[in-house]
Amino acid sequence: MRMYDVIMKKRNGERLSTEEINAFIDGYTKGQIPGYQVSALMMAIYFNKMDYQETFDLTMAMAHSGDTLDLSGINGLKCDKHSTGGVGDKTSLVLGPMVAAVGGKIVKMSGRGLGHTGGTIDKMESFQGLSTALSEEQFISQVNSVGFAITGQTGNLAPADKKLYALRDVTATVDNLSLIASSIMSKKIAAGADVIVLDVKCGSGAFMKNEKDAFALGEEMVRIGKTAGRKTIAIVTEMDQPLGFAVGNALEVKEAIATLKGRGPKDLLELCLVLGSHMVTESGLFASEEQGRAALEEVISNGKALDKLAEFVRAQGGNPDQVYDDSALPEAAIITEILFDETMIDGLNENFKSKMQSAGNDISLSNGYYVEHIQSDEVGNASRILGGGRATKEDVIDLSVGVALHKKVGDQLHKGESIATIYGNDESKIAAAISVLKGAYRFSTSPVHTSKLIKGIVKL
Amino acid sequence: MRMYDVIMKKRNGERLSTEEINAFIDGYTKGQIPGYQVSALMMAIYFNKMDYQETFDLTMAMAHSGDTLDLSGINGLKCDKHSTGGVGDKTSLVLGPMVAAVGGKIVKMSGRGLGHTGGTIDKMESFQGLSTALSEEQFISQVNSVGFAITGQTGNLAPADKKLYALRDVTATVDNLSLIASSIMSKKIAAGADVIVLDVKCGSGAFMKNEKDAFALGEEMVRIGKTAGRKTIAIVTEMDQPLGFAVGNALEVKEAIATLKGRGPKDLLELCLVLGSHMVTESGLFASEEQGRAALEEVISNGKALDKLAEFVRAQGGNPDQVYDDSALPEAAIITEILFDETMIDGLNENFKSKMQSAGNDISLSNGYYVEHIQSDEVGNASRILGGGRATKEDVIDLSVGVALHKKVGDQLHKGESIATIYGNDESKIAAAISVLKGAYRFSTSPVHTSKLIKGIVKL
Repeated sequence: MRMYDVIMKKRNGERLSTEEINAFIDGYTKGQIPGYQVSALMMAIYFNKMDYQETFDLTMAMAHSGDTLDLSGINGLKCDKHSTGGVGDKTSLVLGPMVAAVGGKIVKMSGRGLGHTGGTIDKMESFQGLSTALSEEQFISQVNSVGFAITGQTGNLAPADKKLYALRDVTATVDNLSLIASSIMSKKIAAGADVIVLDVKCGSGAFMKNEKDAFALGEEMVRIGKTAGRKTIAIVTEMDQPLGFAVGNALEVKEAIATLKGRGPKDLLELCLVLGSHMVTESGLFASEEQGRAALEEVISNGKALDKLAEFVRAQGGNPDQVYDDSALPEAAIITEILFDETMIDGLNENFKSKMQSAGNDISLSNGYYVEHIQSDEVGNASRILGGGRATKEDVIDLSVGVALHKKVGDQLHKGESIATIYGNDESKIAAAISVLKGAYRFSTSPVHTSKLIKGIVKL
Repeated sequence: MRMYDVIMKKRNGERLSTEEINAFIDGYTKGQIPGYQVSALMMAIYFNKMDYQETFDLTMAMAHSGDTLDLSGINGLKCDKHSTGGVGDKTSLVLGPMVAAVGGKIVKMSGRGLGHTGGTIDKMESFQGLSTALSEEQFISQVNSVGFAITGQTGNLAPADKKLYALRDVTATVDNLSLIASSIMSKKIAAGADVIVLDVKCGSGAFMKNEKDAFALGEEMVRIGKTAGRKTIAIVTEMDQPLGFAVGNALEVKEAIATLKGRGPKDLLELCLVLGSHMVTESGLFASEEQGRAALEEVISNGKALDKLAEFVRAQGGNPDQVYDDSALPEAAIITEILFDETMIDGLNENFKSKMQSAGNDISLSNGYYVEHIQSDEVGNASRILGGGRATKEDVIDLSVGVALHKKVGDQLHKGESIATIYGNDESKIAAAISVLKGAYRFSTSPVHTSKLIKGIVKL
């Protein structure tokens, strides 16, 4: 196989054979095929697409490009969850303890990553002393004893995906359904779980902006998972505003704890119950999602899910007392309320604005305002500005900072009410974060309908 | 400018600004932008194309990426000729002396290149002692005194094009009209000629397979040349079979000499007269192409064109006696005739073949055969197999080997007639060359019409 011919074939709209895909991934992983040929191929794939067989072949080639985890030492079916990424997404922190409390086995490998907040393992480090660098043996043993473990990536899993994603990221070739699906699924397959539950985010704050694309991605991934012999389902969920109220590392841990106590945001709890009930059913622990859901609700109300979180924190070397007293988690020094006022009504419709302007811009003109939209990325950016996320790998995250929203889409509000609280440690960053956060909100003078959290389940 | 944004823009079908193109070429030339980003951009351009302004901007950015030749020391308008490449194309060797003999100034910079035969400078080295490594001063001085000089590329002309072409060549992004046009024109503009005559080859043996594409390329290049302030014309010419009869370095020099003596192949002479008459008219030496052509025909018949070749060879340090006695040019040791026989009729239509097979495959069945097609690439490959071309930069060319065709498209032939002569020095390579050459021919039992040599002139 000559890489030139592979590029030419795809450029001309032909399909690539299993052998060609294997040879390309093998050669690229070994450094025998240069990046400039691979990026040309990626761009040709962007334009000419790949069919299902090509996508599956690429997934498997990447899944087998390095180590694969052998989790056979764990009793029972091992579950893994993956989210395509959203703002305020702390489901893993709720789901793990909850599912483990009803007997599930959750294997979670997570990265640190760049973004608005840290990854799951960064968030977990809000607990004093907690380590996410588990050996394979420790990981397996903890899942057997506790039912739930989180570790930074162990071994050299799917190195081809890592290399390819880094290349796509700088060559504008990320957004292709086949490439996204194979990237996610190659890692999940290499990581060895029996049950893979995919949370495909959909909306303005997600990679997939509309339901059509989100369902297509979900279907492609479920099909790949099934073909590879894994029980796989995808749940398409809303990401038109941040999930829950908290965005920021320790703030999200606190919200996860509140949720495990039954006092968390409704959307977060509901999402965890839906994801969890499918996990426990696919794992064979319950005969139906209804039974699974009832069991999960029970461990929330009887405190067993919270206890499981404490057990998990202790097992990974952290301080379990912080689970029961979350004021002991990192706290920011500067706390600023953002109050609703005239400066925030830019998003209103033009008619209303001119009416207001002719009346000296008096916000009390209206009978009330409603949150019409919250641009998730911008909420995330506010958190990152405060120090809660990484722009480069070398950045150190400030776990205590972030944003807590008080008003979400559909909520009514009046002048002077707090819409959000900003948690920071650096005075010089506060003003910029406030400005970005204010810009994330759009208001309406008429009631706003909220969209459905769960768009649908993909189960082939 | 971030290169990522440039790629994304083109990927999304937007046009690139002059500033973006300049920054991309500057950064790539300096090694600040990596190949993997550039190849992704090239593939995006392949799919989404560039408009005229983008193409012109790219051309000028590449033309100014390194040195530009200052030919103001040459008296009169300087002409350059460029062919998009074909098999058996030895026009430069005829055109230079011919146009110089009527007072034209021909500046020819040429490479060695990879391919079926060497480049013009390789062919020229068939003359003992001839040097093609002229300094800029020698080059200018010789054009002033002789009217014609050929040199390997002097200075660092259009390094961006060199780098970009090498990248496109291995990433299947060569065939895009804008990229081809800007590559050719950037070098021509940097090389400093006032008059640029482009020979755009068209047909099965050329890069442009059909007239539509060939004219489009010609028009794009002429438009670029005009915008850049150069007198530019393009002539679209046939390349459905090799030009002339000879393919191979010294063989082509001999054919060029024969043409300058008025005894060369008709197609080669005609092409040179057409290209030459436009050159001398654009240079302001003659009022019309008819007058220019008459003058060029005269220097062929009175021997002045041949004398000019000898003068040129002497000026570049070669032995001018070889011009008058071409048997002193390199000659191959093994000369093999290829005779027309039953084994060569694969290309015949199916009806006729089955009729022949039922009659024991007797070739004498037919009243006569006609050459229907000669696949130029394959004739070239036969020459390369014999050692006449380079596969890698390090290969040493055998100047004496190659192929002389005796039958061209439309010619009638009978069993036992010679269709071509193979000139080789290595017995082990002869059989393969014969087999490839035989496969290049296709025959018909009915008369074949030949297509027009000159498809048209592009002059904006």
